[in-house]
Amino acid sequence: MRIAIVGAGALGLYYGALLQRGGEDVHFLLRRDYDAVSRSGLKVFSINGDFELPVVQAYRSPEEIGPVDLVLVGLKTFANDRYDELITPLVGEGTLILTLQNGLGNEEALAQLFGAERIIGGVAFLCSNRGAPGEVHHLGAGRIVLGEYCPIDPERVVSLVTMFTQAGMECRSTDDLKRARWEKLVWNIPFNGLSSLLQHSVDQLLSVPATRKLVRELMLEVICSANAQGLSKPIPVEFADSMLEFSDKMGFYKPSMQIDREEGRQLEISAIFRNPLVSGAQQGLEMPRVEMLATLLEQIESSFISGGSSD
Amino acid sequence: MRIAIVGAGALGLYYGALLQRGGEDVHFLLRRDYDAVSRSGLKVFSINGDFELPVVQAYRSPEEIGPVDLVLVGLKTFANDRYDELITPLVGEGTLILTLQNGLGNEEALAQLFGAERIIGGVAFLCSNRGAPGEVHHLGAGRIVLGEYCPIDPERVVSLVTMFTQAGMECRSTDDLKRARWEKLVWNIPFNGLSSLLQHSVDQLLSVPATRKLVRELMLEVICSANAQGLSKPIPVEFADSMLEFSDKMGFYKPSMQIDREEGRQLEISAIFRNPLVSGAQQGLEMPRVEMLATLLEQIESSFISGGSSD
Repeated sequence: MRIAIVGAGALGLYYGALLQRGGEDVHFLLRRDYDAVSRSGLKVFSINGDFELPVVQAYRSPEEIGPVDLVLVGLKTFANDRYDELITPLVGEGTLILTLQNGLGNEEALAQLFGAERIIGGVAFLCSNRGAPGEVHHLGAGRIVLGEYCPIDPERVVSLVTMFTQAGMECRSTDDLKRARWEKLVWNIPFNGLSSLLQHSVDQLLSVPATRKLVRELMLEVICSANAQGLSKPIPVEFADSMLEFSDKMGFYKPSMQIDREEGRQLEISAIFRNPLVSGAQQGLEMPRVEMLATLLEQIESSFISGGSSD
Repeated sequence: MRIAIVGAGALGLYYGALLQRGGEDVHFLLRRDYDAVSRSGLKVFSINGDFELPVVQAYRSPEEIGPVDLVLVGLKTFANDRYDELITPLVGEGTLILTLQNGLGNEEALAQLFGAERIIGGVAFLCSNRGAPGEVHHLGAGRIVLGEYCPIDPERVVSLVTMFTQAGMECRSTDDLKRARWEKLVWNIPFNGLSSLLQHSVDQLLSVPATRKLVRELMLEVICSANAQGLSKPIPVEFADSMLEFSDKMGFYKPSMQIDREEGRQLEISAIFRNPLVSGAQQGLEMPRVEMLATLLEQIESSFISGGSSD
């Protein structure tokens, strides 16, 4: 399959590398890593075993790639205003667009530009960080859940699941993409938010009783709003506890938003916080702690972002 | 009246200076400002007119002062474990102890050590900062509300009000000290908390719609818990709006907890946050945003306080 990776951060580089190793024809659209990757390829340091791709197809612009079968979108959501510019040249008649981005609102924005029928949503539970240019670190997990944005032909998702699985990823399909998105928000909202605000890693947040309690309270607010969204079946309250246990096993891990703050990048506040808050409010539900966290993050962000576009 | 000032920060220095100018026999227990004040007295820069006290009775230990008629306590509440050591030498038979400290729990702790009958509570609405050693800046307000901790003889409060008023302070008595304390918490909790967490001054917090909204929501949580405490009459919801208007007039003002953070001091989290949270919980009331703010502040504090005692 001819695949373009748009937004080659930790997630895009890692999944793209696995797909290329699995025999797919992968084309990486790069900025920061372009020089290193075109010179010496890609090095993956993974808990499942390191590997190297000495030759990688690297590009600076989507026009050089042209139409593909699958666009895999790993952009930071604050760069979603670049969808048109970055994705349009990649879209041909049968092109599918798979967004593995965080939060809510990505499928909707892509559907508006490219048509709902070609949009597939994916939720990735992946612990990974970028390393030096041309390097990516896979620290844990990696499971992907895929679903059609607009149910038309579930076979398309089935064949993507097959391809991802053959490439060595843990991947399954879902009939309820919305539920999968909200399940991930149950993790993303407390951990991305608090880690970025306090500059504490996951294990630090979980080791202090008061912050552990706050993490759980944030999770419960998210679960409550999720269950007002007309999911196929509700997310049980116990999901919060299983997410806490899952996170206990992560050890020292910095969520992406903590790293975004350390590196002075914009924070994914709209997708991870504001859009879910709007969805909650549309069902008459407040999330007081989530909203407070969003407001605090916006203030923190405005103190280190001068405005303008960001990598 | 023979008066000792214990905890001569901005509040203690300012009110002590006014009392001395008003003709009272004031004795200042000092640490940071001892050298400057014993050498050159005290300079007050006030919106009501600057003045200078060239000779001030300054001490390093309470034993040098001995028993007084009135102990005015302006200590930071995280130093309340020093009540015994700092106040005991000042207490004689008829000594009154007036705490003008922030938050809840101060009268209770003083009553336990020195007897409830001699404790007077005071709530000060004062905008002041310390300047260079021997200098204090009065930036706005200054009103004091005084009440008996344990109603015995209201005449004692009346004569204190008279003395404070004659010294040029705006001062009145209250029959409901608890209500006055909670009214001040309606201001202290949002503004001290958010200014310290975000390092934003009052005007910055009020100028951004999302933080202004959060300030008001925090105020409403405090009012709700206050009204569960058996006050003589409830605090109306409109009090939040009048506090917002009052704060709009402050302009650029850094609350004490913001300055405490800037100067690497402990934060008054117990008195201003945790004790009110306990009082709320005792009446079955949660304050989710207030609790979240307390938890976040504790994490921030632990990142810059290594432990041990603080000035």
